[in-house]
Order: sequence, then structure tokens, then C-alpha cells
Amino acid sequence: MKNFSLKQSRQLFERAKAVIPAGIYGHQNPGFFVEGEFPTFLSKAQGCRVEDPDGNRYIDLLCAFGPMVVGYRNEMVEAAAMAQAAATDVGNLPAPVMVELAEKLVAITPGADWAVFAKTGSDVTSWSLAIARETTGRDLIVMVDGAYHGVHGWCNLRHRGFPAAERALVLNLPWNDLDAARKLFVADGHRIAGLITTPFRHEAGADSVMPAEGYLQGLRQLCSESGSLLIVDDVRAGFRMHMGGSTQTLGVTPDLLLYAKALSNGRALSAMLGANRTRKAVEDVFVTGTTFTQAEPMAAALATLQQLESLDAIAFMERIGRRLCDGLQQRATAAGLAVTLSGPAAIPFMTFAADQGSFVRSRSFAAAWARAGVFVHPYHNWFVSAAHQDQDIDEALAAAEQAFAATALAHGPDQ
Amino acid sequence: MKNFSLKQSRQLFERAKAVIPAGIYGHQNPGFFVEGEFPTFLSKAQGCRVEDPDGNRYIDLLCAFGPMVVGYRNEMVEAAAMAQAAATDVGNLPAPVMVELAEKLVAITPGADWAVFAKTGSDVTSWSLAIARETTGRDLIVMVDGAYHGVHGWCNLRHRGFPAAERALVLNLPWNDLDAARKLFVADGHRIAGLITTPFRHEAGADSVMPAEGYLQGLRQLCSESGSLLIVDDVRAGFRMHMGGSTQTLGVTPDLLLYAKALSNGRALSAMLGANRTRKAVEDVFVTGTTFTQAEPMAAALATLQQLESLDAIAFMERIGRRLCDGLQQRATAAGLAVTLSGPAAIPFMTFAADQGSFVRSRSFAAAWARAGVFVHPYHNWFVSAAHQDQDIDEALAAAEQAFAATALAHGPDQ
Repeated sequence: MKNFSLKQSRQLFERAKAVIPAGIYGHQNPGFFVEGEFPTFLSKAQGCRVEDPDGNRYIDLLCAFGPMVVGYRNEMVEAAAMAQAAATDVGNLPAPVMVELAEKLVAITPGADWAVFAKTGSDVTSWSLAIARETTGRDLIVMVDGAYHGVHGWCNLRHRGFPAAERALVLNLPWNDLDAARKLFVADGHRIAGLITTPFRHEAGADSVMPAEGYLQGLRQLCSESGSLLIVDDVRAGFRMHMGGSTQTLGVTPDLLLYAKALSNGRALSAMLGANRTRKAVEDVFVTGTTFTQAEPMAAALATLQQLESLDAIAFMERIGRRLCDGLQQRATAAGLAVTLSGPAAIPFMTFAADQGSFVRSRSFAAAWARAGVFVHPYHNWFVSAAHQDQDIDEALAAAEQAFAATALAHGPDQ
Repeated sequence: MKNFSLKQSRQLFERAKAVIPAGIYGHQNPGFFVEGEFPTFLSKAQGCRVEDPDGNRYIDLLCAFGPMVVGYRNEMVEAAAMAQAAATDVGNLPAPVMVELAEKLVAITPGADWAVFAKTGSDVTSWSLAIARETTGRDLIVMVDGAYHGVHGWCNLRHRGFPAAERALVLNLPWNDLDAARKLFVADGHRIAGLITTPFRHEAGADSVMPAEGYLQGLRQLCSESGSLLIVDDVRAGFRMHMGGSTQTLGVTPDLLLYAKALSNGRALSAMLGANRTRKAVEDVFVTGTTFTQAEPMAAALATLQQLESLDAIAFMERIGRRLCDGLQQRATAAGLAVTLSGPAAIPFMTFAADQGSFVRSRSFAAAWARAGVFVHPYHNWFVSAAHQDQDIDEALAAAEQAFAATALAHGPDQ
């Protein structure tokens, strides 16, 4: 086994700092991983494995922050994408594949009569607000306090650069507090255009929190009663919990359903789906982009959906994710460390009880696990995919034993 | 020559209407072309030619609304893109190609010390406002009245779905009116974070208008004197007027320069470039997206820039665009029709004087030209590319003779 070195990563990052603010901006900035202990660039990806510029190889349990769902360079997806790109991609008009993809999504999604496409999660979260406002003629939007719905002004969590005026019509709600939601709808229901929520709470820097019993059903009811739209931001969770939208696991059908990430297995493609009630608003609101109808990611999405179906991927990822979580729990206990595994099995996350929110052990563990050949994020939830086989999980768990041992050694086992 | 039929287009569009609001949303909706006379989808593209689902072939003078600048399926661009995609594309971390592309853009762009990347033009126009506000600590933005800077709330021209609060901090300025700009800066200069402008006025539904002598230089001076940022939205014009940013044709260096469209010859990639004065703001403002650092479009962009340089494409497109404009002018006159050719030669647009803004003859002409094998837009400026050769222009002009004749026949020659 070759020595773990980050020399090439460091040299590239020095070059990057000269021509890019912070070297790498946004969620991939080294400060969000474990500075000095993680690579800063990746050079290769195949299946569930990635490789950095120093030649270090990792089992990837971050999956590009979600998009990779049937394996990097999945043969069927790549073949479909290449065939489409060879015909036409970005053009004066859409390609026929847009109709096929819309037909497919409408067919597999309860409550959806139509689909439109954009590039990013932020594109569709903001677009959905405009559709809710245009449909209802109301102005207020309700979102869960601290939820991540992208980077536009109305939801940018850091606020800097965005005037308060852009957040003025957004009301905040605590997660899993149906009473608070009821009060809000009693007070302002006639002004609430839409309520936007993720299918579970998955903010970085905290354990994931599943919806309490009856919570999402209650929000659905409040929206229906007040004529507001229930918007489910399924950008992060989509196609890892249910093929018809993640809240279908609870039988909840949103008015607007938003996808990105896993939809095309790692291209820039997002989608908004809705019922006929909102169709006219989509016709009247002008949201578009030169590359919104780009054909290659749509062909990749069709192939991704076919792969997910033929692999029975939802059940597979649930099983493989459970195997990962159970294995980590056992090995942590064996090392004398108390950990919390949270989130759906296919979108797991682990924290250390003794960290009490400091993420000291999380950082230690993530760095040691990376050195042992597994790529996860210390603060942000992880993902499994249909490309992770049992032997990959076994290998990751064997490496975790080393990482738990290193963590216990550095910080002491729990008392 | 096969008969011109739109049967497949019509059938696809009927299918589309069932699952997509308006069948096709946004700028590609049939209502923006000539309904019933234009294809609604395109199936193939190669070089400067495109083909619709009925097998009709067109010389493309719309260039995917700008992105196609060195030819659809340009061999060098496709090879670079495919090689990168085979290594890594969307990932946990950026690929090394991001550093190479930032280095290249900084090297060829006067006044640029750094570059960051996103997906769409709207991504970077909105991001630039946040950078201007964060850099200056001010809140107001100035834009030219009616200018197209994308679809977000602050600049959405149709307004529907977007609350007035999102436009509250945006002041409007008439194009080419430096006195009005001076008055605005005298009144509010201390509150103006940035002024955003395109390098020439190119709104759909009107002749393009070049900057009056001293106008952009005057805006540059006003911004410098008041400590505001001059933001040039080069999304549409970029890489067709100058390789260092379109306002360099006038010696004007913006504080923030925005690219998309032609940057990658038809992938989803946009960029914002700036000087060190704004670097810290970019570090402090949190704007990102899962696919912002996607590697394949960056490799395509590097190859596109190399192609543009090796083909001396700016001079080439100026020459070929001039040949097109002069040829159209002559043939219109010969047909007894008065036309106005406006815009830079590489981004031409033609209107009919007798239309007086009604676009009746423009629609007639565009439909007839399409039938004769040339794809342009009746209301929106056109584009030439480095893939248009003299014989393509000659062929397009020969077809234009038929289209002018048909237009004169339908509406009569001018008096």
C-alpha cells in the first residue's frame, strides 16, 4: 500500500489560491472538510471509488454530495448521455428527449401532471416560490428555520451580500413543531402562498432528524385547508428514499416537488413537478435559461431512472446503508466510543456523543478514515449508492476500525 | 430537395403539452418564434448546421442563443470534454481543470485577478450583485431600464411571481443617457453598490444599440468616482467582440465581468471575474452549487478558448458577420425592402423599417428563410460563429433572396 501523501493537492491548492478567491469557494472549500488532512481536488472517479491527484484512492461515501446514485461512469448512463450529446445538446430548441423525460417523471410521480427542468437546486427552489405566489396570488412563504434550500437571497443562510428585503416575505417555522405551524397558519394562512420543506431535516453540522409522526401529514393538511402550496425540496434526498418523491414513504403528496442531484447521476439538471392546479402559473411566470433544456443531462436522467428501477435501487440502498450504519455502530462501541447514526439508511450521518456538537472527534475520525481509504464529510450527511456492493461496505468498515482506534487514541474512549 | 414538413415537430409538441406547461417553457416556447411555421424541437447539430425531427436541415444563425461559437460538436472541444468526463466530472471536490481554466481566464482578461464558476447567466448576475453589496457595504444596484440580466426576482422582466420587494433596491437608468446617470450618482452615489450593464443594448424585440461615444467610459468614471462597482454582463456578447471582455473594444475595464453562453461552446458553465479589491467579498459571500465546479464544461471551455485563439475567431466572426449583414442589406434593397442591420457584426440583427416595431415582416421573413434552410429568430438578435464559412454565408444569402421575395409578395415592397 502506497503512503498517504497530499503533496499534489497542496501544490494545486497553492496555484488555486492565486486565481480563485479562497482557492476553492463554496461548500468544497477545505475549511469545510479537515484542513490539511483531506485532499483538495479529485482527479478520477469510477463506480463508488474516487482518486485524488496524489493517487490516493477512496471508497466514496459522499457521492459528490448526492448526485452519484448508480455509480460514477455508470456504463448505461454514460452510453445514453454520449449518444444524446453526439446528436444535439444545448440548442435553439429542446431535443425530443425532454418530452420523454417529462413523461417518465409524470408517470412515476403521484400527483404530478407536469415537469419542467432547470440546472441547479437553487433554480427550482426559487422557481417554486414564484409558482406558489402566482398560483395563489399571495406573498408569504414559510420555511423551516435554518433549512438549506440553496443560495439565493430569500434562503441564503449566511445572509452576507443579500439585502434583508429579499427575506422580508419569508416566515420561519421550527422543525417538527406542528403546533407552531398551526399558529402560523391561523395568523397568516390567508397570506401564505407556500410552505417549503425537505422530507427530513438534514442541515450540515447536526444530526439528521426524521419527521415526527404526523408532522408532514399535518403540514399537508394545513396547506390544503388554507389553499397554500406544499413544496417538497427533494434536491438532496430525491431517489434515495422513494422513486415517487421522498415524502411518499409517508403517503404525503406535495403540490410542487423539486429534484436535482441524483436525478441525472451527476450532471447539472434539476426539475420541478406539479399538478394541473399550478400549470397556468408555470406558463405565466417567465423562468428560463439558455441551458435549461440541455439534452445530454436529460438522456442521462432517463437512463439513471431506468437503472434505479432495474436495480431496485431504493431497497438496495436501504439495505446497504443499514449494513454500513449497523457496522459503524458496532465498531464504535467496540472502540469504546458512543456514536449517533441518524437519517435514512441511504443518507446516513454519524456524530460522536462526546463531541457535544464540537465535531472534534468527527474531524479526527474523518481524517483517519480518509487516510485508511474512505471519503466522508465530517459535518455533512453522507450518501450510499446502488454502486456500493457488500464488499465495499465491508472494506469501509474494516477501515473504520482503524479510524475509530485512532480517534479513541487521540481523544480517549468515552467515560 | 425534400419537402418542408413540420409533422414530427407538431406531434412531439402535442405530447409535450400533456406533460410540460405550455409544451415548451421559457424563451424556446413556439410563441417566441413563428407559430406553426417553425420546428419546435431540434434533433441533430453539427458544425453550423442543425436538423429538426422532420429531417429539415438549417444553417444555424442563432447558435443556440449564443453558446455555439466554434461549431456544434467541434472536434477539439468534444475530445477535451470527453477526456475530462472519463476521468471525473461532478465530484466531492473540484478537478484540477478548474485551476487551469481560472489561470487561463485571468491571463487573458485585463483587470481580472480571479475567477469563479457557476452554471447559468442568472447565477452570475445575481452573484455579482451580492459581491458589489458586500464589497461596498451599500445596498443600491443600478441597471439599464428593460435590460435582460436573467430571470431572478431583481431583474425578471415579466415580474409575475416575483414580489416587488425583490426589486426595491434596483434603480433604473435609460440606455446611452450619461446625463441621467450623472444625476443618479449625484443623488444616490454613496448608496450605489454597483451598476450592471451589457456591452451594448441587445433586448429582444428591438434593434440593438451600440454604446454612444463616451457612454461606457462615462459610466466607468462615475463608478470609480463614487466607489461603486461597474459590472459588465457579457453573458450574451462574450467571446464574440473581444477575448478580454467585450468592453475592451472601448478600453473599458469593469470591476466584475460575467460570462456564460459561448464560454464553453454550449455546456452549462458561467463565470465571474474580478480584481483583488473584490476578492474578500467572494470569500465571505456564500454562493455555491453541487455542480458549480463540474469539470467537463471547464475542460470544454479551455478547449473553446484555445480554438477561439488559434482560429483568430474574433476577427473571423467580424468579417463573416459583416459579409452576412452587407449581403442581407443588398438583397433587401434589391427586393424593394428597407431593413436595419444592428449590433456588432458577429451578433447581428435585422428588422424591417416598414414593420414599425410590429415584426410582421420579420415573422414572414424568418418563416420563409427557415423554409429555405436558414434558422434565425424573428425578435431576438442572431449570432455567427467561427464554424460559419464563406460558403455557408453565401448559401444563407441565396436563401435570403427567396425569403425577401416571399416577404415582398406577402406584404408588398416598401413605398
